[in-house]
Amino acid sequence: MIGVFDSGLGGLTVVKELLQKLPNYKILYFGDTARTPYGTKSAETVTRYAIENTEFLLEKGAKLIVVACHTVSSTAIPVLKERFKGVPFFEVVTPSFKKALQLTRKKIIGLIGTRTTVESGIYQRLFAEVDPEIKLIANPAPLLVPLIEEGWLNKPETRKIVKKYLIPLKMRGIDTLILGCTHYPLIKKVIAEKAGKRIKLVDPSEEVAESVYRYLEENSKLKEELLPNGEPEIWVSDLTPNFEKLATLFLKRKVTLHRVTW
Amino acid sequence: MIGVFDSGLGGLTVVKELLQKLPNYKILYFGDTARTPYGTKSAETVTRYAIENTEFLLEKGAKLIVVACHTVSSTAIPVLKERFKGVPFFEVVTPSFKKALQLTRKKIIGLIGTRTTVESGIYQRLFAEVDPEIKLIANPAPLLVPLIEEGWLNKPETRKIVKKYLIPLKMRGIDTLILGCTHYPLIKKVIAEKAGKRIKLVDPSEEVAESVYRYLEENSKLKEELLPNGEPEIWVSDLTPNFEKLATLFLKRKVTLHRVTW
Repeated sequence: MIGVFDSGLGGLTVVKELLQKLPNYKILYFGDTARTPYGTKSAETVTRYAIENTEFLLEKGAKLIVVACHTVSSTAIPVLKERFKGVPFFEVVTPSFKKALQLTRKKIIGLIGTRTTVESGIYQRLFAEVDPEIKLIANPAPLLVPLIEEGWLNKPETRKIVKKYLIPLKMRGIDTLILGCTHYPLIKKVIAEKAGKRIKLVDPSEEVAESVYRYLEENSKLKEELLPNGEPEIWVSDLTPNFEKLATLFLKRKVTLHRVTW
Repeated sequence: MIGVFDSGLGGLTVVKELLQKLPNYKILYFGDTARTPYGTKSAETVTRYAIENTEFLLEKGAKLIVVACHTVSSTAIPVLKERFKGVPFFEVVTPSFKKALQLTRKKIIGLIGTRTTVESGIYQRLFAEVDPEIKLIANPAPLLVPLIEEGWLNKPETRKIVKKYLIPLKMRGIDTLILGCTHYPLIKKVIAEKAGKRIKLVDPSEEVAESVYRYLEENSKLKEELLPNGEPEIWVSDLTPNFEKLATLFLKRKVTLHRVTW
């Protein structure tokens, strides 16, 4: 089984990509809806939650963990790898960073994400290590998650707020934009339109699914262990009618949510 | 000591009113910033959190509890009263309901709040009990909390979204509007402007402070126990620079936040 977790239901955009690229594996998802969102909380608290979520997935039989949450990917990965030695971890930051590196011509890359992701400075560090000439222009976009969770995917208010968040990035001349939150693929069209044709978008959900796919192609032993196939199983720490609606929105198909009782 | 808790820092608007009306008491506040917000979560989960928050305040020496959170006030009060017998609880729903009853002439009352507050149906039940003629027109306004927490108190986007939420209420002819969330007093001016002069606003922070004041005037024994005076003490379950900024915004004065380590 492939374990995937996120602060809430946004990570189902990653599950959607995994199902497309890896249809032969059983996926176990955990969304921490009782403590969502993570993007406004401290790195310390986010790390504590990430450890608990990983323990849950491993106990349920996951052999490989995909961290679908950008906030966790930006703050907690070294602690997770240290604590759960031997477990392969995949996260959304590294593949997005690599893709942006491939795409940029002008070496001016934009990033939008939650406050905690942007303030972690992880992208800045990664780019500085490989090419000090690259400029990363980052802007926290904290209202996009609540707008998306309200289902306001193409409302005038959402379009206006997206535009507002992108202005400082466009003024600095970015040619590539990292969508630094797993919610954002749902408003990718609006973002693409407001960014304009000259800016290429990096979608972390696609990139992380691609990197899991390549890893499994090279690790046939693990690949065997991860089989057999089966319907994805979606667990949450809190359940409301609105969370059920959201899950369908993100995964683009009807699913049953199972509630964990901790 | 008077204990006050909320899902996050919005309840500091209640503390601000308490400090004005009851300057002689020590106030102990707990904001559950590690699990905020509550308004999108289920009644069951919110009740569990409310019990833990109350235990924290009682252990610290609180003798009276003010539930500053509208979501908790709408869903968890019977359980809290049953579990902590003998502790006087004050919440924001009952005094707001009473004030709205006094103010309305046309018997058409509006309510905006989080999804969980509105869906709890508590106001509907309260009004139906005293006067079946009263019509309550309720509209969840879930984007207001994130907008306020971003400090977008008077931005065009906020004004537009407030207007949008009020349209269905105005169309039904309300003459009184309950601000069903402790965050909303921060944008009271915008709400008043968009509601128009004919609609009277009910601010739960003022109403609950008034009801605590009256209760203590009538209970001189408890009043003695609650003294002495002292600076308000503010505890949180997670601490970030943004939470510190928010606390100052809500309380309208500089405060030190203490972090609980659970």
